[in-house]
Amino acid sequence: MTDAVVGRLRAALGDRVDTAAESLDAARADKSGHAAPGRPLAVVHAASVEDVQAVMRIATATRTPVVVQGARTGLAGGSNAGAGEIALSLRGMTRILEVRPDDLLAVVEPGILNADLNAALAEHGLWWAPDPASRAISTVGGNIATGAGGLLCAKYGVVRDAVLGLDVVLADGRLLRLGHRSVKGVTGLDLTSLFIGSEGTLGVVVGATLKLRRLVPGTVCTIAATFPGVRDAAAGSAAVTAAGIQPAIMELMDATSLAAAHALLALPAPTPGAAQLTVQTDGPAAVAEAEAVARVLRDAGGTVAVSQDPDEGERLLAVRRAMHPAMESLGTTLIEDVSVPRSALPDMFDEIARIERDYGIVIPTVAHAGDGNLHPNFIFEGAEVPPRIWEAADELFRAALRLGGTLTGEHGIGVLKSRWLADELGDDQWELQRQVTAVFDPLGILNPGKVFAR
Amino acid sequence: MTDAVVGRLRAALGDRVDTAAESLDAARADKSGHAAPGRPLAVVHAASVEDVQAVMRIATATRTPVVVQGARTGLAGGSNAGAGEIALSLRGMTRILEVRPDDLLAVVEPGILNADLNAALAEHGLWWAPDPASRAISTVGGNIATGAGGLLCAKYGVVRDAVLGLDVVLADGRLLRLGHRSVKGVTGLDLTSLFIGSEGTLGVVVGATLKLRRLVPGTVCTIAATFPGVRDAAAGSAAVTAAGIQPAIMELMDATSLAAAHALLALPAPTPGAAQLTVQTDGPAAVAEAEAVARVLRDAGGTVAVSQDPDEGERLLAVRRAMHPAMESLGTTLIEDVSVPRSALPDMFDEIARIERDYGIVIPTVAHAGDGNLHPNFIFEGAEVPPRIWEAADELFRAALRLGGTLTGEHGIGVLKSRWLADELGDDQWELQRQVTAVFDPLGILNPGKVFAR
Repeated sequence: MTDAVVGRLRAALGDRVDTAAESLDAARADKSGHAAPGRPLAVVHAASVEDVQAVMRIATATRTPVVVQGARTGLAGGSNAGAGEIALSLRGMTRILEVRPDDLLAVVEPGILNADLNAALAEHGLWWAPDPASRAISTVGGNIATGAGGLLCAKYGVVRDAVLGLDVVLADGRLLRLGHRSVKGVTGLDLTSLFIGSEGTLGVVVGATLKLRRLVPGTVCTIAATFPGVRDAAAGSAAVTAAGIQPAIMELMDATSLAAAHALLALPAPTPGAAQLTVQTDGPAAVAEAEAVARVLRDAGGTVAVSQDPDEGERLLAVRRAMHPAMESLGTTLIEDVSVPRSALPDMFDEIARIERDYGIVIPTVAHAGDGNLHPNFIFEGAEVPPRIWEAADELFRAALRLGGTLTGEHGIGVLKSRWLADELGDDQWELQRQVTAVFDPLGILNPGKVFAR
Repeated sequence: MTDAVVGRLRAALGDRVDTAAESLDAARADKSGHAAPGRPLAVVHAASVEDVQAVMRIATATRTPVVVQGARTGLAGGSNAGAGEIALSLRGMTRILEVRPDDLLAVVEPGILNADLNAALAEHGLWWAPDPASRAISTVGGNIATGAGGLLCAKYGVVRDAVLGLDVVLADGRLLRLGHRSVKGVTGLDLTSLFIGSEGTLGVVVGATLKLRRLVPGTVCTIAATFPGVRDAAAGSAAVTAAGIQPAIMELMDATSLAAAHALLALPAPTPGAAQLTVQTDGPAAVAEAEAVARVLRDAGGTVAVSQDPDEGERLLAVRRAMHPAMESLGTTLIEDVSVPRSALPDMFDEIARIERDYGIVIPTVAHAGDGNLHPNFIFEGAEVPPRIWEAADELFRAALRLGGTLTGEHGIGVLKSRWLADELGDDQWELQRQVTAVFDPLGILNPGKVFAR
């Protein structure tokens, strides 16, 4: 049966069907540290919509599971492909099909890297706002599949705010065009939004009509503020929001993560115990807002430096962007992704400190403090998350839910968090969501074992 | 059977069950000019979530259709209730349950008027951005049900961008909490977005967690520009967008609608044939942007006046807000709502002129020119839309679709546009959407005969 599936794929797609051992092994894992059990049947490197349709028709005919992949930079195992599955890679579909500065939209294939798209858009004075820390290595399609967030979300929104329409191939190979090209459009149900963040369970996104912005004019100001401890830094960020200032970026690093990032970048070690807020303001009021932010942070007990030099600003942000590789240098990492209302950020740091004490572990944490999204990192030895770490993570999830928050702000449920999904949704909503996926995928061949597995 | 349903409603809900003839007649119609055939069984004036659950349990037990209503200001007949149906009015559920300036959110009941909510939020220095022209008379729940738009959408987004979570009662009476309170959240499928714009076909929205903004500081500048004809005005608005300026508001009125609004407001008659653009800029760069807009519009052939006086700005916008009552003064109105990419606005006005010539009718049109959303008004005598007007509207819809646009930018499909829904979605997507509604409403008791009827 397995050989028959690969044979049919080869007959239809020729050398775009890849069964090299190293390709199959690579397709098992994303950047979560977790790998699927076993090797997939094949990796198909799709070059066109027709390729994707051909794969899905064969998958439907043979009841073979399909896992859609991009750059495999996910952090929840959502695109890991294992035994008996087809890994359908869209990484090669990188074309920009249309850029319309007058309509502020672009139509792209899903495999293009976020940073490559933005480099091309910059020539038109445009940008696509979603800015995950991984933007240099993650694809637009992957950003859409996870409903990615990033650093700019409080001011400029998440992926869901930046997509007008999607072209999708259904499980049976049919092509649908969802959404619209106009700013407004309410014809029928909003399936575009339903697909965003659906993690490969509803269909294959083969094209996206993106809502663009014009590049923001004016100076970008960067404020770096050091605090004696992480709770002080969190209170400082909450004070900025409460003061009515809207920074473009407001990132928080606790002492452990700051020290690890400095070490990775060969920078001088920071003051022991110190936590840092890195804030950027932009737009016509950037300078005035930066001064206001600096005042609020000084009043909150921070040691504050303000810079209008873009190079200096990028250097300061580079420390934050080095977080994930810095964590990888400490051991195997389970990167968590809880999100809470902004006012609950200091309380959430208290909960993390409690869990550290109770479990005798260190949980280096960074946060998109401007929007309340935290990335606590659990570090351990070996390939699999030990049960004790899962217990600590379980406490973390429950604390976030208690504070009015959510399990995942931007990484998705994938395979690593599916067992907690019903805790947040409730059994009724969980079952309803599963039934909605069955409308799109009646045979259950799209990314089985992820999201709704329990 | 009918008496039995009303009896069960009365037993559960007492005098909140209203069968007065004038109430039943009123429940048949919204502001579209269209009325449902026959009178509903009863109007239930729900005062609480429990009331809504009680109604839905009785409706499910007795297989009785339910039409949810707010202020009945809809323009597509989507909330009209007719023979054999229960009209479930949420207009009495107007409480603001929570306002959190630090988290920029509010939790409200669905029956509160948009303008009443914004008056209350202003005391906290906050606002909810959706701004339909009907905001003084339309409810937040109705704004959500239709996925309303309004005047500010190009700069400040549509309802879908301004809702974090929804509490909904399902067809069988179960209560679900969808979405989240944090800025980010990607746990499971985005059912919140699916409900927005679903026009009463998926469940009953009984509470909403709204994403707020801080009031925009600084001067609001208003630019009024008169053009010799509507196509010149449309080209002027496209030139503003193409110049990279983002006004808060950019409204276009053609000669007929401008004259009708002036007459209604007892203002001096405008120059015959003249069309008008009314533009507002806001925020820290408002004055500079207003000057830039004025330059672009003068270059485009407009006669331009700029004002920084807020009262004068409101007077100018009042002309635009008087559009719907002004049309009602001309006869029965079929208000259309097509939306096209911004660059296609001049072409869409050419199509309207062609349809006017071909059908020998006048189609007064206003447009949210900043986002490409047009409201062509078909005026006729009597209560029902004559076949010839439908033929002209059919041409209008097909022209919008040809130009890359959509059937409805913000009013919804309702009963008036359901026969064109599959033309835009395609049969495959239409069927898929219908199946999704069946997951939520397996008995088909939620607003039957609307949206997906054909």
